Parts: sequence; C-alpha cells; structure tokens
Amino acid sequence: MHLHLALLAGLLASPVASAPVGSVQAIASASASDWRPVDQADLMYIDLPAGRVVIELAPLFAPAHVTNIRTLVRERFFDGTAIVRVQDNYVAQWGDPSGKRRLGTAKATLPLEAERASGDIAFTPLPYRDSYAPETGFAGNFPAARDPKSGRLWLTHCYGVVGVGRDAAPDSGSGAELFAVIGHAPRHLDRNYAPVGRVVEGIERLSSLPRGSGTLGFYEKEAQRTPLLRVRMGTDVPESERLKLEVLHTGSDAFAAYVAARANRERDGFLVGASGVDVCNIRVPQRTVR
Amino acid sequence: MHLHLALLAGLLASPVASAPVGSVQAIASASASDWRPVDQADLMYIDLPAGRVVIELAPLFAPAHVTNIRTLVRERFFDGTAIVRVQDNYVAQWGDPSGKRRLGTAKATLPLEAERASGDIAFTPLPYRDSYAPETGFAGNFPAARDPKSGRLWLTHCYGVVGVGRDAAPDSGSGAELFAVIGHAPRHLDRNYAPVGRVVEGIERLSSLPRGSGTLGFYEKEAQRTPLLRVRMGTDVPESERLKLEVLHTGSDAFAAYVAARANRERDGFLVGASGVDVCNIRVPQRTVR
Repeated sequence: MHLHLALLAGLLASPVASAPVGSVQAIASASASDWRPVDQADLMYIDLPAGRVVIELAPLFAPAHVTNIRTLVRERFFDGTAIVRVQDNYVAQWGDPSGKRRLGTAKATLPLEAERASGDIAFTPLPYRDSYAPETGFAGNFPAARDPKSGRLWLTHCYGVVGVGRDAAPDSGSGAELFAVIGHAPRHLDRNYAPVGRVVEGIERLSSLPRGSGTLGFYEKEAQRTPLLRVRMGTDVPESERLKLEVLHTGSDAFAAYVAARANRERDGFLVGASGVDVCNIRVPQRTVR
Repeated sequence: MHLHLALLAGLLASPVASAPVGSVQAIASASASDWRPVDQADLMYIDLPAGRVVIELAPLFAPAHVTNIRTLVRERFFDGTAIVRVQDNYVAQWGDPSGKRRLGTAKATLPLEAERASGDIAFTPLPYRDSYAPETGFAGNFPAARDPKSGRLWLTHCYGVVGVGRDAAPDSGSGAELFAVIGHAPRHLDRNYAPVGRVVEGIERLSSLPRGSGTLGFYEKEAQRTPLLRVRMGTDVPESERLKLEVLHTGSDAFAAYVAARANRERDGFLVGASGVDVCNIRVPQRTVR
C-alpha cells in the first residue's frame, strides 16, 4: 500500500488495490466453487438520496430479528423513515423519528439474540490473539467469536456490521431501529447487542454523513436527517437492479491464504509483518457477477 | 450506552456520555494533578472551510519528522494545500497535489521513525491480549505497543492517529504529506509507517468527508478536494483562539480505573463484560479549560 502522492503523478503503471500483492494473489487462487452466491432473500436494499446501501442479513445468528426485519420491509415500515443519528467513530442509526409509525404484523419487542450455541455452525478460527474473546474467526460470511468452554458463538461488531438498536432492557429491540458500525469496532457491544447483518455495498454512504451534534450523535434538527426513500428485500427488487454478489467461502484454502497475507505484510512498502491480524481487519473478499 | 430512539422522547433526564457510568465515575475521580496541559508548541491547528482540526504532535516518538513538520508549518508550506484522498474505513490524507510546492528549509526525505528504543519512556501497559503486539498500552498521551524482548516501542495506528505518507521506500517521507486514520485501526501500519501525532479536535471534519472515487480513495477532480486554508502551530495562534487542552495522565490511578471500566462494562444496558479491551478502543480522556 502506497501512501504517497507520487501515485497521482502516475508512477504506478496500473491501479492497485489497497491490499498487498500477497492478498491479491491469495484471492486470485480461489477456484470457482470457492465463491458462494448470496441469496437475494438475505439482501436488504436501502435507497438513500445519494444511492443505495445493501445489507446481508444473518438469519442463522438472529433468526427472530431477521424474520421481523423481513416483515417490516415487506410491509413498507422503513419507507420514509430516516437516519436519525450519526456518532463519529461509532454508529449510523436509522428508524422512525416520530415513534408513531405502526409495526404492522411485526413484533414490537424480541428477546435478545446476541449469541447462540455454536453447535454445528461451521467456523473458521483465526490463529491470532484477540483482546475480547477466547477465539475469533468467521462463521459463514460473518466475523465472529467463539468460546470453546461455554460452547457459545457470537457475531462481532466489526466495521459495517449492522445491529439492533434497543433501550437498556435487553429484550426491548425489534429490528425497527438498526445501526451500522462506522468506526473502530466497538467490540464491547459483542454479546450485548444483536448483530443482524453486515453492509456489503454503500457503507460509505453512511460513514460519510455529517455527524449529529446532539447527545450520542443524534441530529437535533429534522432537516439534518437522511431519509430512507425505499427499502426492499432482494426478492422484491427487479432482476436488473439486483446486486449479484458472491463471497469468498471463509472455509476455503484461498481464504486461509488471504488471512495469512493480511497477518504478514512484508511486501509493497511494508518492512515488518505483525504475525497477527484482528478479526475486524479482515474484510471477507466479495465480487459482483453479471 | 443506549441505542434506542426513546432517547429522542426525552426518557433520559440528563445528557449522558456514550461511556458507561463506570468510566464517567473513573474520570471524575481524577485529582487536579492527574490532568496535564498540552504544550502549544505540540499543537498543530489546521483551518478547513468547515472548521478546525487540531493535532497533538509526538516529538518523543518521531523527533525528526516533528521538527520537519514544525518547519513546514512555520514557513507556511501547508497553507493552500488540500485533502487529496479519503479512503473509506482507512485514511484521510493531505498534501500538495501539484507536487511542485517548495519545501523551503525543511528536509525532502527523512529516515523512517516508526519505532524507537523503549528506554526510559514511561509506559502504562494494558493487561489484555492484543492481536498485533506482545504488549500494548499508553506512552504519554499516545496509544502504543512494546516488545519487552527487543526493547522496542512504537505508537499504534488507532482512530485519529496521524501518520506520514510515503512511497514504497521507507525513507521517502518528510511530513509534507500526512494522513489521519478514519476507520478501524489499520494496525498493520504499525512499525512500518511513522505516526507523528493524533487528532485531538475535529476528527469528524476529516472522517465525514466524501470518499474519493479514484484508486486508494484519491479524488479524481480538483474541485472535490478540501483546501487547508491555514495551518499554524499553537505558539503562533492568538491566545484567544487556542485550544486549552488537558489530558488525563495515563499513569494515574484514575486512568487505570477508566481502562478497567472500559474493559468490564456491565452497567447501563450491558449484560456481559468482555474482561478486555483493545488499545484502540480506549480514548484518552481530555478536557478543555478556560
């Protein structure tokens, strides 16, 4: 990764990704079957004035919340809601600022789904230390952590992860208020808040919004809020407008090579590899197909 | 920390910080002598059209670069330069887009200052695991890491940390191009790039800028760049306009209590403490005085 303006002068013959060559080669080594399509039923499309944000929901980890969110989307709850809070280095949050919108057939509150039994969930552990959990890694397309002693597994609040806003009572959330992480991973939320997905397109449309000047980053004036014009599940999005997304299988050899390259950068301007990487610094490779 | 819109309805009687009560109490327990003023000679004030960004430089850790930056500021190198790159979840970077501006009496390149001998540097270690370093903690006002075996110490690239842009050659930087971290801590930069300071005011004026659409987040059109109108060291800023900043001494008992509260959140809506926290999730408490 170069951090020099010489780039602007065209010293590099071809565009490079910010990942070092090792990572790029690792991804390139993936076979066709290492790429897995994401089901449109798991994709939530949010149209903002500046463009769209697409979220991959995580039904395996927050089944009741995801079911509720799908109901809310199908019944058009979110159309006309707004981004009401942007707190720097933390979260962008959306919901119904009036608090008066009806939830239709969706549930108003749900038990917290912040962790689950690891059971038979496929998990690719990372061989590196973590400040918060006994073990971190990937469960499907999601960054996660696991406690072998307790047999529990949970998604980690990494950049771009979407969680359920709630009041102090753990069972006070419903999915009608959601937030996306837009800063350094607030891992203290792990096991305390319910992650329901991750942003797979358009996170910059949330992270670059003006910060709210009120308490906790809430906007103080209605005009500062960004409206959610239209929210649809992928199955209700016209075929031509769908994000045809494929994600590198986190159990593949190519993914393991990619992780190793991220943990040991000694090329392309790097002198010293860390021999480690935290789970939130590994973005699962993805690609769009036609 | 509440993440519910009920806040908007005024359910909370008084404004709360996002830190749980434990952290607030810890900070409140600090004695007057636990608060240390920051020398104006170490503060770099950058005026952007939207307001100012203030950086505390780190002469103890990058002495040659800080000396060079002070020279560049004094000779008005930065006035009229611009933010040329904003890459999502990574960095905002500024410098001279023309590459033709003269460096005056400043040096054009400097040896890399990415780490140093820990020697007699005061260091407050954290008792928690880290994914990148044998030991993390705080050196003065700065997040840092240390290797007891090698006796080396380095600043960590946490959110808001300012580093030196350079080309692939490690000694190609000068401080005339700087970047600030605006995403999840890119700790792989540790020991590879030279941290020269940290943003102590106005990071949101960098982190909320539109992302560049070019390679590595560079802006593709000149009009997209944000100009640096004026850059001054605190000693050249009129007394009435100075940021009178005090920082909680990271060697104090109050700071230790604050860290412990961050690592074990079990109040205010939290159910499970992590018994750990990573160095980049601990923002050193600061306050302004009159």
